[in-house]
Amino acid sequence: MENKSYLVQMNGNGVHNKSIENGQESQAEVGREALEMANNTLNPIRAIVDGMKLTPNPEKPMIALSIGDPTVFGNLPTDGAVLQAMKDAIDSQKYNGYAPSVGYLKSRQAVANFYSCPEAPLEAEAIDLAISVLCNPGDNILVPCPGFSLYKTLAVSMGIDVKLYNLLPEKSWEVDLLQMESLIDERTSCMIVTNPSNPCGSVFSKEHLQKIIKVASRHCLPILADEIYSDMVFPGCSCSSMASLSSDVPILSCGGLAKRWLVPGWRMGWILIHDRNDVFGSKIRQGLVKLSQRILGACSIIQGALDSILNNTPPSFFSKTISFLKTNSEICFNELSTVPGLNPVMPSGAMYLMVGIDMDRFPDFKNDVDFTERLVTEQSVFCLPASAFEYPNYFRIVVTVPEEMMVEACSRIREFCQRHNRASSTESTDLDH
Amino acid sequence: MENKSYLVQMNGNGVHNKSIENGQESQAEVGREALEMANNTLNPIRAIVDGMKLTPNPEKPMIALSIGDPTVFGNLPTDGAVLQAMKDAIDSQKYNGYAPSVGYLKSRQAVANFYSCPEAPLEAEAIDLAISVLCNPGDNILVPCPGFSLYKTLAVSMGIDVKLYNLLPEKSWEVDLLQMESLIDERTSCMIVTNPSNPCGSVFSKEHLQKIIKVASRHCLPILADEIYSDMVFPGCSCSSMASLSSDVPILSCGGLAKRWLVPGWRMGWILIHDRNDVFGSKIRQGLVKLSQRILGACSIIQGALDSILNNTPPSFFSKTISFLKTNSEICFNELSTVPGLNPVMPSGAMYLMVGIDMDRFPDFKNDVDFTERLVTEQSVFCLPASAFEYPNYFRIVVTVPEEMMVEACSRIREFCQRHNRASSTESTDLDH
Repeated sequence: MENKSYLVQMNGNGVHNKSIENGQESQAEVGREALEMANNTLNPIRAIVDGMKLTPNPEKPMIALSIGDPTVFGNLPTDGAVLQAMKDAIDSQKYNGYAPSVGYLKSRQAVANFYSCPEAPLEAEAIDLAISVLCNPGDNILVPCPGFSLYKTLAVSMGIDVKLYNLLPEKSWEVDLLQMESLIDERTSCMIVTNPSNPCGSVFSKEHLQKIIKVASRHCLPILADEIYSDMVFPGCSCSSMASLSSDVPILSCGGLAKRWLVPGWRMGWILIHDRNDVFGSKIRQGLVKLSQRILGACSIIQGALDSILNNTPPSFFSKTISFLKTNSEICFNELSTVPGLNPVMPSGAMYLMVGIDMDRFPDFKNDVDFTERLVTEQSVFCLPASAFEYPNYFRIVVTVPEEMMVEACSRIREFCQRHNRASSTESTDLDH
Repeated sequence: MENKSYLVQMNGNGVHNKSIENGQESQAEVGREALEMANNTLNPIRAIVDGMKLTPNPEKPMIALSIGDPTVFGNLPTDGAVLQAMKDAIDSQKYNGYAPSVGYLKSRQAVANFYSCPEAPLEAEAIDLAISVLCNPGDNILVPCPGFSLYKTLAVSMGIDVKLYNLLPEKSWEVDLLQMESLIDERTSCMIVTNPSNPCGSVFSKEHLQKIIKVASRHCLPILADEIYSDMVFPGCSCSSMASLSSDVPILSCGGLAKRWLVPGWRMGWILIHDRNDVFGSKIRQGLVKLSQRILGACSIIQGALDSILNNTPPSFFSKTISFLKTNSEICFNELSTVPGLNPVMPSGAMYLMVGIDMDRFPDFKNDVDFTERLVTEQSVFCLPASAFEYPNYFRIVVTVPEEMMVEACSRIREFCQRHNRASSTESTDLDH
């Protein structure tokens, strides 16, 4: 019988009910709107992917180009020095206890030194913390479009609005600065800049970064720089940190071991606090410390290994990784740029490549979700529809898969597009050439 | 110049200001109330400890009985099997990628099997997540007094009120059930029960747990059972899980490797979902999954090692730990129970012991904070004043320190009390016997 009351309580909506036993039946329907925060936690990727019918072609082995995790195929292991650093930290038995909530001083200093930065609290959930400390419910933040969906997931769950500023594919995904500036109002509390970009793989030039900083400066906005892919930049390009270019705009830069060291599951991140003019004052620092006390920080073993990981990973490890990513990106770009109806954009870094779809040429499909769903059904190739990044009619390819898999995937994508491209029947197309 | 505006924006209070450059000077003072969540994050232990003047006596080496971290003195290392499991997980190279947000299926199953429980999502921040999923802003939760301060820290930062139910020292810290029940109102959304207890070291009998469950059942309240010290119970006592005793009340039980395996820094916890009658329905499960997607889960390496850690740690490791804790507790209890003015309560488990102070006998001190502060100044012994657990006139001793240190600390506490006990001058006291 209590069971029933519990059910009402848990599944109803509106105000609370606790006292059916007391005979107050009028309250029986007014259960509770449980889980405000959970209900406000929306993951756009999950929402889209979970809704897709992903039934691979049984005659073709599945190739997943969808997951931004470089470890899944085993072709990109982290360096032996990283593993040894971890085992040394374990054997030392010095890192089993509670670390300070912002991380061991020694580990924070190792990060600060590595990035020539004054302060660097360690955080498993750096972006979450940085948004929390810069924004209040009712504020809004500027977020790139296309952009990493976690920003929206986190912001919305905190009651913060998201305003999307456009990246322009025709300008290698540079920011539409005028449109960005037009979004700013009195409740805008920060600007998120992802560089290098997920999902675009683009890398902003120094000059472009300076223009972005100028916009932030004009409106006194701090910048949350998501630089988790920093230094994952192809030879010939260069990638400046936002902090190195800012003279007045305060910048929280989020980074971590995940991508560059190829260990995303280890949950070791940090927030670099760059604030030359002490604009943040003590409030932001104290706020970060306070918030870090809620979650008690990152795994102590990895903190213990951090100094060694940062300083003993050989440069050849990074150059090998980057060279692999560049080669794979070129294979993918070169292949797909000759497929009529597709418009890949060559990346300059990170591990992604975006491909535009001329939807007019593919009347079989309603949108990018439909397109990528059918690509699985027919060709067993899974790419993430860019609707997951609020950017329809594109899809994202992860370029960390083994080379032969990338070649095979591209050839299947070509076959798929040739089969469904209807342009040839109504107009002269690339197919005719 | 932007700098100045930034400063106003960051340090003012009230509504936002972004546009001093536009000449709207009237807005210059209305900066922003930044960091709502950070400002709402209060850690009572920190608040009290940071305010204490802790200047040890230079002639006596410091003995800290204050920190609930069994690793600090190196006398309680974790088991070699645990370290080996970690190194195996590292060497396997299979646990560097993203785990599912609720943890690897295999690791979750290992926990579920170990605790004979249907479902067990892994969470670095289990209590945070459990509170989030059961409560909304404006709700209130029942929390033990004295009790672990993190509950309040987390609840208040989420806009949830905390109502304290009393534990009775004269009844081995059992719950004052009538007073507990009197606190429940229509906005009460869950009851937190810590068993074994931090800071009391008490362990509830089966019968007492059943009475608590009865209260929850009458008011249709789910229970959040903080069972992080489960099975850390002295020989002769027994400790039932709340879930094993509940037929109708749904229970989220939070546990982890921290205490029993002596690796608190590893941040590996879990939430056991016990819900025989499916009272939680799918909402709570889905809520936990959604919330876990915000924080992306616990460190993958430790997840990879979990199955082996749970199954290969020899029983002798646990019995050795418990026997050490019991011996130290007895030393401490026996010593301090013959100190006039002190009333230690013998624990039955966990790693703590609470000591009452007859403040009337110690007119030199205003309160427990003053008392423990001076104990540092004079004797270089630091115990946590129980005001940090909302329980004045007590202090908490951590019994994980090496035995000789415990003996020395008790003898210094005796000296300190003898020196400051003024009862002998005004009335007949134990001192005279």
